Amino acid sequence: MTPRPHDRAQAVVALGGGHGLHASLTALRMLVDDLTVDELTAVVTVADNGGSSGRLRGEFGVLPPGDLRMALAALCGDDEWGDTWARVLQHRFEGEGEMRGHVVGNLLIVGLWELLGDHVDALDWVGRLLGAKGRVLPMAMTPMDITAEVRGLADDPDELTLVRGQVEVATTEGVITSVALDPPDPEISPAVLAAIEEADWAVLGPGSWFSSVIPHLLVPQLRQALVATDARLIVVLNLAEQQGETHGFGPADHLAVLAEHAPDLAVHTVLADRESVGDGLDDLRAMVAALGARLEIDDVAMSDGTPRHDPTLLAAAYARIMQSG
Amino acid sequence: MTPRPHDRAQAVVALGGGHGLHASLTALRMLVDDLTVDELTAVVTVADNGGSSGRLRGEFGVLPPGDLRMALAALCGDDEWGDTWARVLQHRFEGEGEMRGHVVGNLLIVGLWELLGDHVDALDWVGRLLGAKGRVLPMAMTPMDITAEVRGLADDPDELTLVRGQVEVATTEGVITSVALDPPDPEISPAVLAAIEEADWAVLGPGSWFSSVIPHLLVPQLRQALVATDARLIVVLNLAEQQGETHGFGPADHLAVLAEHAPDLAVHTVLADRESVGDGLDDLRAMVAALGARLEIDDVAMSDGTPRHDPTLLAAAYARIMQSG
Repeated sequence: MTPRPHDRAQAVVALGGGHGLHASLTALRMLVDDLTVDELTAVVTVADNGGSSGRLRGEFGVLPPGDLRMALAALCGDDEWGDTWARVLQHRFEGEGEMRGHVVGNLLIVGLWELLGDHVDALDWVGRLLGAKGRVLPMAMTPMDITAEVRGLADDPDELTLVRGQVEVATTEGVITSVALDPPDPEISPAVLAAIEEADWAVLGPGSWFSSVIPHLLVPQLRQALVATDARLIVVLNLAEQQGETHGFGPADHLAVLAEHAPDLAVHTVLADRESVGDGLDDLRAMVAALGARLEIDDVAMSDGTPRHDPTLLAAAYARIMQSG
Repeated sequence: MTPRPHDRAQAVVALGGGHGLHASLTALRMLVDDLTVDELTAVVTVADNGGSSGRLRGEFGVLPPGDLRMALAALCGDDEWGDTWARVLQHRFEGEGEMRGHVVGNLLIVGLWELLGDHVDALDWVGRLLGAKGRVLPMAMTPMDITAEVRGLADDPDELTLVRGQVEVATTEGVITSVALDPPDPEISPAVLAAIEEADWAVLGPGSWFSSVIPHLLVPQLRQALVATDARLIVVLNLAEQQGETHGFGPADHLAVLAEHAPDLAVHTVLADRESVGDGLDDLRAMVAALGARLEIDDVAMSDGTPRHDPTLLAAAYARIMQSG
């Protein structure tokens, strides 16, 4: 990957959660290393209610730390120091005891929150520990719950059932028609709004579409900031449908539900993987055109056949988009 | 505290555990700062079976991390970085959930142990995180159990009862006549033996006498190393008897049980607090003389009346001993 450096280094804000955001940040970190990007901020969903994060959220009433920790690990310095502490933070306890399933970094982040009393300050301390190549911020300052209206769970096939919780939404056997957040208008860190305002590019996705990507558009202050900013928005499509929340969704369907949840949002570029699009290309072209966006088709999937983005290929695609943008 | 710098900076190894070792290391760190000491190594008991350490030891079969974590925190760098991470490591979770009572640093250390597979390497990583002014090593490479023969627990007042576990020994209502370790001859890190061999001074105590101080003398390789080294041994007496394990013990009694457990050990200096010795001074002088040691009486207690060593006063006393030694 040897893109020409951009005339001016770019400020980028990446929005998402989970493994999708981890892949995107790993790619964007490479662009920090090669000076294409000079300011990188991750804005991370805080609606997880499962696993270690869910247990800690339930026990301490704090933001679920898991997606924040994963984002921080993705941005770690690429020396032995950053690599080791990232691996420590990502380490999950095994065994059969009370710690089983907890992740070291989640516990460290919660400890810092308790001690410092400030979510953002605590995450900055973990970033300094890792020598992180960017800043990680929570989407909201309070833990959120995702709710979804789901069709196909009741006897009447048209009846909508309300499903509550990220885990429950992500694994529903019905068809999600819309998602919402509770509380509907949470407090946002001023640092998040500043990062969006000052960004040259905003990157949304890839990731669990209804539970990690769209939630950012449901927070009124966040959506308004994304609408108001001069930053050009790149939407990164997933490589496959996801059992549960996006079962049966093609690339164009992903874009359609995004537009439904944030009709006033201007999309600059839609990035899709060549092979994953397959015979959905015509539908995707039409949807992208309807949004007034550009379509960037690249090979960005891992070569092992798993539906994961290859960070090096993704970095090259981001660099191409930023240079042509 | 402005002692003249020693002609040559001294290498010091400090042996103990718990709050006593924490106070001693906090004092010795000051001597690193003023260049009296240039090599500082803590050798820490690993026999704790209570609290967060006991739970983690039981769950993962690792060394109990608590006393090691406390020693590391005492050696933290004295800038905002070292101070903050030390406070994070020392932070204990409250609340009513499954994490209650666990300490962040204990979890971090256990995570590092699992990840790196090497106790000493993991502790060195935590030391680097803290910018520690010395190295912290475990007394042994396997978790230990303390056992004690205790008089006064049975109907027959002369009958000896075997009490097992650091918590149980430290809180026994009987009179401890001797302690032992299980396993009796554990593996020792070569780094511990090297530190003792190369030290100019070894400091033993203060701390829970039977459960944190004497255990070092019960490990055959450790005792042999302390007997063989040219390092001069400073024994730091406690400021008060301890309910449970040393109930009714005066300063001379503390020294007597130490000598009983390691009769071949040469003591260079016994450091005692002036007010704490009180009318036990004559007995103490006689015992110190019998050991062929010097007696250093100083004001080293906190001025608030609690039986804790004042690190600044303790540092000044160590400096005086090292300059006269």
